[in-house]
Amino acid sequence: MSKVPLKGIFTPNLVPYTESGEINEGELRRYVDWLIERGVHGLYPNGSTGEFTRFTPEERRRILAIIADQVRGRVPILAGAAEANVKETLAACEYYASLGIRAVAIVAPFYYKLSPKSVYAYFREIGRNTPIDVTLYNIPMFASPIDVPTIQRLSEECERIVAIKDSSGDIPHMIRMIQAVKPNRPEFAFLTGWDAALMPMLLAGCDGGTNASSGVVPELTRKLYDLTTDYQIDAARAVQYDLIRLFDTMIYSAEFPEGFRAAVQLRGFKMGRGRQPLSDEQKTDLVTLSRELQCMLSNHGYTDQPIGGCPIDVSASTAADAVEVSAIVQQVVAELKRRGLM
Amino acid sequence: MSKVPLKGIFTPNLVPYTESGEINEGELRRYVDWLIERGVHGLYPNGSTGEFTRFTPEERRRILAIIADQVRGRVPILAGAAEANVKETLAACEYYASLGIRAVAIVAPFYYKLSPKSVYAYFREIGRNTPIDVTLYNIPMFASPIDVPTIQRLSEECERIVAIKDSSGDIPHMIRMIQAVKPNRPEFAFLTGWDAALMPMLLAGCDGGTNASSGVVPELTRKLYDLTTDYQIDAARAVQYDLIRLFDTMIYSAEFPEGFRAAVQLRGFKMGRGRQPLSDEQKTDLVTLSRELQCMLSNHGYTDQPIGGCPIDVSASTAADAVEVSAIVQQVVAELKRRGLM
Amino acid sequence: MSKVPLKGIFTPNLVPYTESGEINEGELRRYVDWLIERGVHGLYPNGSTGEFTRFTPEERRRILAIIADQVRGRVPILAGAAEANVKETLAACEYYASLGIRAVAIVAPFYYKLSPKSVYAYFREIGRNTPIDVTLYNIPMFASPIDVPTIQRLSEECERIVAIKDSSGDIPHMIRMIQAVKPNRPEFAFLTGWDAALMPMLLAGCDGGTNASSGVVPELTRKLYDLTTDYQIDAARAVQYDLIRLFDTMIYSAEFPEGFRAAVQLRGFKMGRGRQPLSDEQKTDLVTLSRELQCMLSNHGYTDQPIGGCPIDVSASTAADAVEVSAIVQQVVAELKRRGLM
Amino acid sequence: MSKVPLKGIFTPNLVPYTESGEINEGELRRYVDWLIERGVHGLYPNGSTGEFTRFTPEERRRILAIIADQVRGRVPILAGAAEANVKETLAACEYYASLGIRAVAIVAPFYYKLSPKSVYAYFREIGRNTPIDVTLYNIPMFASPIDVPTIQRLSEECERIVAIKDSSGDIPHMIRMIQAVKPNRPEFAFLTGWDAALMPMLLAGCDGGTNASSGVVPELTRKLYDLTTDYQIDAARAVQYDLIRLFDTMIYSAEFPEGFRAAVQLRGFKMGRGRQPLSDEQKTDLVTLSRELQCMLSNHGYTDQPIGGCPIDVSASTAADAVEVSAIVQQVVAELKRRGLM
Repeated sequence: MSKVPLKGIFTPNLVPYTESGEINEGELRRYVDWLIERGVHGLYPNGSTGEFTRFTPEERRRILAIIADQVRGRVPILAGAAEANVKETLAACEYYASLGIRAVAIVAPFYYKLSPKSVYAYFREIGRNTPIDVTLYNIPMFASPIDVPTIQRLSEECERIVAIKDSSGDIPHMIRMIQAVKPNRPEFAFLTGWDAALMPMLLAGCDGGTNASSGVVPELTRKLYDLTTDYQIDAARAVQYDLIRLFDTMIYSAEFPEGFRAAVQLRGFKMGRGRQPLSDEQKTDLVTLSRELQCMLSNHGYTDQPIGGCPIDVSASTAADAVEVSAIVQQVVAELKRRGLM
Repeated sequence: MSKVPLKGIFTPNLVPYTESGEINEGELRRYVDWLIERGVHGLYPNGSTGEFTRFTPEERRRILAIIADQVRGRVPILAGAAEANVKETLAACEYYASLGIRAVAIVAPFYYKLSPKSVYAYFREIGRNTPIDVTLYNIPMFASPIDVPTIQRLSEECERIVAIKDSSGDIPHMIRMIQAVKPNRPEFAFLTGWDAALMPMLLAGCDGGTNASSGVVPELTRKLYDLTTDYQIDAARAVQYDLIRLFDTMIYSAEFPEGFRAAVQLRGFKMGRGRQPLSDEQKTDLVTLSRELQCMLSNHGYTDQPIGGCPIDVSASTAADAVEVSAIVQQVVAELKRRGLM
Repeated sequence: MSKVPLKGIFTPNLVPYTESGEINEGELRRYVDWLIERGVHGLYPNGSTGEFTRFTPEERRRILAIIADQVRGRVPILAGAAEANVKETLAACEYYASLGIRAVAIVAPFYYKLSPKSVYAYFREIGRNTPIDVTLYNIPMFASPIDVPTIQRLSEECERIVAIKDSSGDIPHMIRMIQAVKPNRPEFAFLTGWDAALMPMLLAGCDGGTNASSGVVPELTRKLYDLTTDYQIDAARAVQYDLIRLFDTMIYSAEFPEGFRAAVQLRGFKMGRGRQPLSDEQKTDLVTLSRELQCMLSNHGYTDQPIGGCPIDVSASTAADAVEVSAIVQQVVAELKRRGLM
Repeated sequence: MSKVPLKGIFTPNLVPYTESGEINEGELRRYVDWLIERGVHGLYPNGSTGEFTRFTPEERRRILAIIADQVRGRVPILAGAAEANVKETLAACEYYASLGIRAVAIVAPFYYKLSPKSVYAYFREIGRNTPIDVTLYNIPMFASPIDVPTIQRLSEECERIVAIKDSSGDIPHMIRMIQAVKPNRPEFAFLTGWDAALMPMLLAGCDGGTNASSGVVPELTRKLYDLTTDYQIDAARAVQYDLIRLFDTMIYSAEFPEGFRAAVQLRGFKMGRGRQPLSDEQKTDLVTLSRELQCMLSNHGYTDQPIGGCPIDVSASTAADAVEVSAIVQQVVAELKRRGLM
């Protein structure tokens, strides 16, 4: 497991809660097995999808302890390790190293919007002292951006920085990063966190993705990865189109990551109630969203239809042929829109 | 020429100026011929690259009159036709129709930032009264954005609206537009104006591009289009990487579109001085930029090296193999950066 | 009139249209008289409120010719003079100088987002060649921003640049501009275009404003100016609070400047239909808005109530005391909100 | 102390570090005394200036324990209490209540950008269960914005929500909040966190401020508060102009809050090295900044000049007259700029 470059689909997994809002260890273990069985290449706990900011430092460690114990080396684990400051982050890195984690992912400093100089200084301090490989995590909509010169410089100065996960969805930016880093660090890995651009990102040179949709439909995300890296362009495009509909519905119809939590629930896991309170209106919206998602998922054969059926009859659908599926999904969505449900 | 859907590379061509700052008709005619001979599929005058806002209404018409006369039907022309208000815009459309132009492109209202409702009302009034096919032009960094529901509604209600040119560079957005429009209007064309994403845009379903770089290196942009639509993924990617370097240098090193004007000058055209005044510092910067561009272009065999030579010896380079070229361009750029020239 | 610094309230006046969408000269003349009679210190045609971008170059000149003829020196005129390029702008300046206009106001280059260097070069070219005093016009939400160092440098190098109109509403920015310019140019004038901050702007050191609300309620805007410059803080604050309600309703409830056009219509002028098309939904919204505005204006005694009356009885209200008026306006607005009308 | 509305200047105090990067309890106690002696109306630990995100949950509690013990009721304390989730935040509130803290301040959820609905649900859950008065904290550049309808609704539904601290610096926004809340909750307090607009904010209706500059020059911030609330407009304006220069230098010349830490060091406190790493270049910049700040502070009589003196001789300056001081500060700054030091 040790020094193979990061590659493929790493699932930024959610954490199921118990009735009382605690980590649901049993469901988490069951969910991890389920994901691995459906073909994801790795796991990525304590990312943005995993709501790392809503756990205490102790809970974040416990999540990794549970997952490492359950995975037992079947797939590599990428652990979100950002803590309050460099000292605390390095302590977390030590702990994750002791668990046999493949690498950590560290988001750029957030809350304060830091300059490139400070982002560089922060990651350099970590990169020089970490006992475990580090993935930079660039998500400019939530945290200080990591610009191309900073990535280049860090890749040159810190051997233990081995990858970047970028959630901007900006393909030219991805190409610029690859151009700046690969000549000197051919094994450095580039992962995209923006599911809506996974196919074009891979074709443009990415090594893989950390995609929230793979926590919901690991079969579909994996299929998209395989078709794309096999250059089956038309088939891959059709799956990408499907995935965008599902992804958009999950990401734009509820507060992130509630839409993904609702969808994982539909796949058979007790996710519990999220830690961010919801207004009554939001709770109602989530029920509506859940029905829509169930129709989308049943359309791919991943769940049954909801009681009362879906807006139009798509029950004959099988996931056999991506192009057919796409046509049906389009119909469903069009009908949902006509009925004002989307 | 009439009802064939728009497809391929449309060059948003610059306008050469005389010494006194007027339209240089002779050079414009020579430039148009040169572009057509190098394989661009169409021309697109009075776009953002063509500095349409810096001409008077009369000058904008004269530019089209000259180009239509010079092209004489060899390639389709897409004419920027936005004027001060709907009435003036429709009058321009009438005139362009009389010149035998294939279609007009109309940018969303700018200066005021209008809501989707107003953008819809504006284009609907035009779409219902135009005597010539209309391409919507979405460029959210300069003008009111045209959102997906607006595009869908306009495509359903206005038969004469036949295409959209989108310069956002956002691939998922492009996919969402295609999903919203193509089922009802399979012939509706989608063109990207963001050169840095041309290859992934085409693979994601675009029909072509209106790319400023095709006014500088029509051979290279055309090659990228051909390789990509032929699914020669690795070769296409290498050319896309090259094109990004050139595009970034032209677009980020000087005020748009001065970098492109400097590069076209290097291809052998007298471009004159632009209409936007430059500070002394900017004039000096432009000389430096011009040398860098000349090295890049000479590296592809498109120009001679500048007097004094390029930072490193790349004179043996030929454009034969895109991957080789890419490696060399990377070296040049690295050297330029080492010397603080980029 | 000649060299007195700009000071006080300059109304960025709208232009009434005829049935067929042309400039309504008669109403324009009547409107200009009405504004002067109600105490505005100057007029400012062809600004953003005046929809300068929706007129042809010839129409913009005609507007000034009409207004200059009607005003006949009673108040100074500040004329928006931005044209397609520097040469055209200077030609307009020549013409406005010939009309006896006090000064022109030139918005920073728009559509393209230019760097401070280019903004400087643009205004310097104008500042060195203008035959008439120039006011810089900074409106960063619509045009390239003019930063503090640029203003300072232009104020030092160009004697004919005599003022800045700033519509950002950012008070610390206003203070920074004043600190950078006044020591060397004590007569340089600072005008704010953001009505919602007029009182604090004047207290922070501004010389006046170009405020769209003064085209609707010149009495109220003038009163706010007088109370504030007289340091009657509590009374001024109450009027500012009132003005914000009215301003917000006009600016946020319809596409700018349609809300202001609707309100001027209520003051007794035939404004005609705007040049930007409206959707059917927008037309309905405008009728609703017009009723709300009429209640607000009748509450100040500026109009009658609409037929059917206002949501609550405020008929006893007189404009005598600003604090009372404010309380009533608050009630009206609260009631409108309770009824879902705001 | 209990139910008096919040009013006046609350200092968002920094935390001094020891050599090894721990909380320097001795200096913190000394600093707290110093601030109270110089007239600040209250203290506000664990705010953005206090780097709350860079401490562990345990450290945040310890900071409050130290400060509460040191203050012993001399001034009210407003304690930043945001933790990882509502449950942890309420536990912190319980603890702070047990310390006799006047109120907590809770920043809107950050990292994720939440919608108004979620911001409402989050604060409502806290507002309904808190054992201590709550101040909402709106800082849209770092956290999810709290819009006016949300503030109004929370003020109506949650009696224990008693104030808002707003760091946007947007005066019309402040007026809109006051208009929405004060009619029903006359005792609700409005505090501004944007020092550069303190005078106009107070004149527009604010009750006070949480201003980082009061941690550096408590005498000056307090003087500005007193002059402004006493309607000594010209004198207040002069102090506001001075404060902007100092504030801008501290906030824009280094990563926040390093500039403020450097300035407090100049006032005689051992601040230690911050927890966010600095690049070598940043360390050098901070030395330069420190000299500039020392000159500014010595100019007001708050420190000695740095060794080697200040760029121009301002040693005769006393803080006696704000207008004189202002003129001198302007000279200093102009000279610093001429010498390229600012």
